[in-house]
Amino acid sequence: MNSHTQSSKPADVRPHVVIIGGGFAGLNAARAFKGKDVRVTLLDRKNHHTFQPLLYQVALAALSPAEIASPIRTAVRGQKNVEVLIGTADGFELDRRVVRLKEGIEVSYDYLIVATGATHSYFGHPEWAKIAPGLKSLEDATEIRRRILLAFELSERESLLEGIQRPINFVVVGAGPTGVELSGAIAEISQHVLKTDFRGTDPRRARVILLEGGPRVLASYSEDLSAKAQKQLEELGVEVHTSTMVTNLEPGVVHVGEKKIDAAVILWAAGVQASHLGKALGSPTDRSGRVLVDDRLNIPGHPEVFVLGDLAHFEQDGAPLPGVAQVAIQTGKYAAAEIVRRIGNQPSRVFHYHDKGSMATIGRARGIGQIGKTHLSGFPAWFAWLCIHLVFLIGYRNRVAVLLDWMWQYLSWQSGARLITGSDNLPGWHQHHAAEEKLPEEQKVG
Amino acid sequence: MNSHTQSSKPADVRPHVVIIGGGFAGLNAARAFKGKDVRVTLLDRKNHHTFQPLLYQVALAALSPAEIASPIRTAVRGQKNVEVLIGTADGFELDRRVVRLKEGIEVSYDYLIVATGATHSYFGHPEWAKIAPGLKSLEDATEIRRRILLAFELSERESLLEGIQRPINFVVVGAGPTGVELSGAIAEISQHVLKTDFRGTDPRRARVILLEGGPRVLASYSEDLSAKAQKQLEELGVEVHTSTMVTNLEPGVVHVGEKKIDAAVILWAAGVQASHLGKALGSPTDRSGRVLVDDRLNIPGHPEVFVLGDLAHFEQDGAPLPGVAQVAIQTGKYAAAEIVRRIGNQPSRVFHYHDKGSMATIGRARGIGQIGKTHLSGFPAWFAWLCIHLVFLIGYRNRVAVLLDWMWQYLSWQSGARLITGSDNLPGWHQHHAAEEKLPEEQKVG
Repeated sequence: MNSHTQSSKPADVRPHVVIIGGGFAGLNAARAFKGKDVRVTLLDRKNHHTFQPLLYQVALAALSPAEIASPIRTAVRGQKNVEVLIGTADGFELDRRVVRLKEGIEVSYDYLIVATGATHSYFGHPEWAKIAPGLKSLEDATEIRRRILLAFELSERESLLEGIQRPINFVVVGAGPTGVELSGAIAEISQHVLKTDFRGTDPRRARVILLEGGPRVLASYSEDLSAKAQKQLEELGVEVHTSTMVTNLEPGVVHVGEKKIDAAVILWAAGVQASHLGKALGSPTDRSGRVLVDDRLNIPGHPEVFVLGDLAHFEQDGAPLPGVAQVAIQTGKYAAAEIVRRIGNQPSRVFHYHDKGSMATIGRARGIGQIGKTHLSGFPAWFAWLCIHLVFLIGYRNRVAVLLDWMWQYLSWQSGARLITGSDNLPGWHQHHAAEEKLPEEQKVG
Repeated sequence: MNSHTQSSKPADVRPHVVIIGGGFAGLNAARAFKGKDVRVTLLDRKNHHTFQPLLYQVALAALSPAEIASPIRTAVRGQKNVEVLIGTADGFELDRRVVRLKEGIEVSYDYLIVATGATHSYFGHPEWAKIAPGLKSLEDATEIRRRILLAFELSERESLLEGIQRPINFVVVGAGPTGVELSGAIAEISQHVLKTDFRGTDPRRARVILLEGGPRVLASYSEDLSAKAQKQLEELGVEVHTSTMVTNLEPGVVHVGEKKIDAAVILWAAGVQASHLGKALGSPTDRSGRVLVDDRLNIPGHPEVFVLGDLAHFEQDGAPLPGVAQVAIQTGKYAAAEIVRRIGNQPSRVFHYHDKGSMATIGRARGIGQIGKTHLSGFPAWFAWLCIHLVFLIGYRNRVAVLLDWMWQYLSWQSGARLITGSDNLPGWHQHHAAEEKLPEEQKVG
């Protein structure tokens, strides 16, 4: 194993900041170093930043991957003091101030920012991942897109060639923002897409079933907004089942206690766990693997190490901050500013999160929002959501492209991204549905 | 195995045309049936038509997959007499007029159109496919994009962390239109991308090596245009080696007789073979598997079976027609018209190909074209190429999107599609280059 400094030029004496992760937290930290007298290395496994709040639109074929992702290099192109490296961090030697990469090399740092986010949690059932994909990356989104579109295609083939009209059940597990957005959008697309594009498939056969273990949807919102969200989902035709725990998954079948639900597609939006790099820091973590940080986002004994965004467990007002983009962005900007303060021997400040509100969208013109004491729902919430997401999307070009696409779709109900790509292996003719029998109405849960 | 008619309604007595393949030939045939009193079933393994002439731009991250592909359903949405089915044809029973699908069902027809095109030929070395991908599908294009972008990323990492400045060799095998377009575009992107996006990589280290077994590039064009194309490639920095046969491929190494060329990326554009469905028709084929058809594109003894596009071997003026989009489009339109004539008891006509000219593009503002006796090269050829490809692109929305993207790139040298997606497995640190030594200049071929 070789140890190297970051550059072959020996003269660089600027403090070296290594940022791991090019998500909202890492990218915002890197950008906040603009013009500062530091050397920044931004390390990520992938070459692009993904705008996660719009991933579900890629999964629903409303947007293309390139519209919601931006190469990290492009995002920091204007900053001479940032180097971008593709690589997989897999460990630390905090005493030597070194990050180990999987590729067998070490990168040394003066300040370290760890912002590798979170991934799906299948509650101890990793084998469910193949049955019910979650939605965290572009690859997840195109896989989900493939499964949803194939479900319609296989149903069409079956009804045209065999005269069989079977229900097409989409089961979404988990009614947080992702589950709500996915199920609302599937309900809408299936009504409209099926009507215009498919000849042999009756749109009323598509059912969207949203299963939530807790007592209400969007539990991080107030109770009145939760109720409004559920009502809007039901208006779109989504069957919402709260207090309903999934006990097992098999291909094509969701178990809810004794009951079984046949499913053409199962999607997972039920839980997240922090990136495994959190544990590699050797510092205490919470149950979902988030690293406990102090009031400056540092870990105990290491004021040069910052943990940000979804990977951090930061308590404010008695509760940990939620895993949302705003938290990631604010922790990123804070960490950069705090490092600059320390380098310049300026007074240190503690981190404080300013809640600018949160919103979730439901289908094409519905949503809920909570901004301070103001509660929005319906069209105003949806429109506010739309504007805010356009503003925060990285890259001027992406904003224009997404805006044009949204306008086009809003006016025409069409989309140009409805591609099934990836595996050439179509599901077999009779493997697609686990059971041959028609699904009886009584199999509905709840 | 079940045999089914195409619809559960027994009253449909219209002649049933089954088209296999949604490429240029099959899609144009389907569209030419618009308003005619036939029932058309368009069958494809994929749900989208791919505009193959622009695939290389997806491979070079200039365009996104969704911009050059169109769901087949969308492309025939306006036609009430066309049903689209996703499935894999794997055999025929011509006497019973039945197509067998891999999925274990049969589709019967009155007229059959087989237009499943061509794929890569590795000249008896299928193991080379993984080492040197070809360019026929969206999946191929995103895989090539991944390899090209990763080559730059790994070089950047190596030079920043280890101070090693190694040549980045891109070897393209085959100097037909695809090989010429790929190598010209790689040469251009590497000069410009490396300059603006990478800090540690010297652009002059990128070498593009184009290997052609025959005596000249773009051999289907006249000798003067071949020479002009080679000159334009060399102006872009491509090292062109004609009469150079590749004798073996290993990961990262191209063998040319006794010589070895280290390669960060190897791309295959050297040969095509017809789809295996051609042989399944049981009719004579040529050396590359194309089905010999008569003057009406039928196979012997089966006037109800048409073979079109790249899958057909049709002789005109003493030579088989080339595997280009124009041939596919014209055979598609002819077959539909001929079927309509036969159903209406109108006089049959023979097929005749009208050569409207051909063109190839080289980089951002160069190209060659041959339109009748007019030979174009340089900027006029490139501009004509651009207009024609915009016109032939399927779908109004795609045309607008591609035009906007091209304008944006022409003005800014930027591109928003530079994503590395797919496999999470980055090549290992020291596996990327086959040899550790620097590549000596003498290893250049030719």
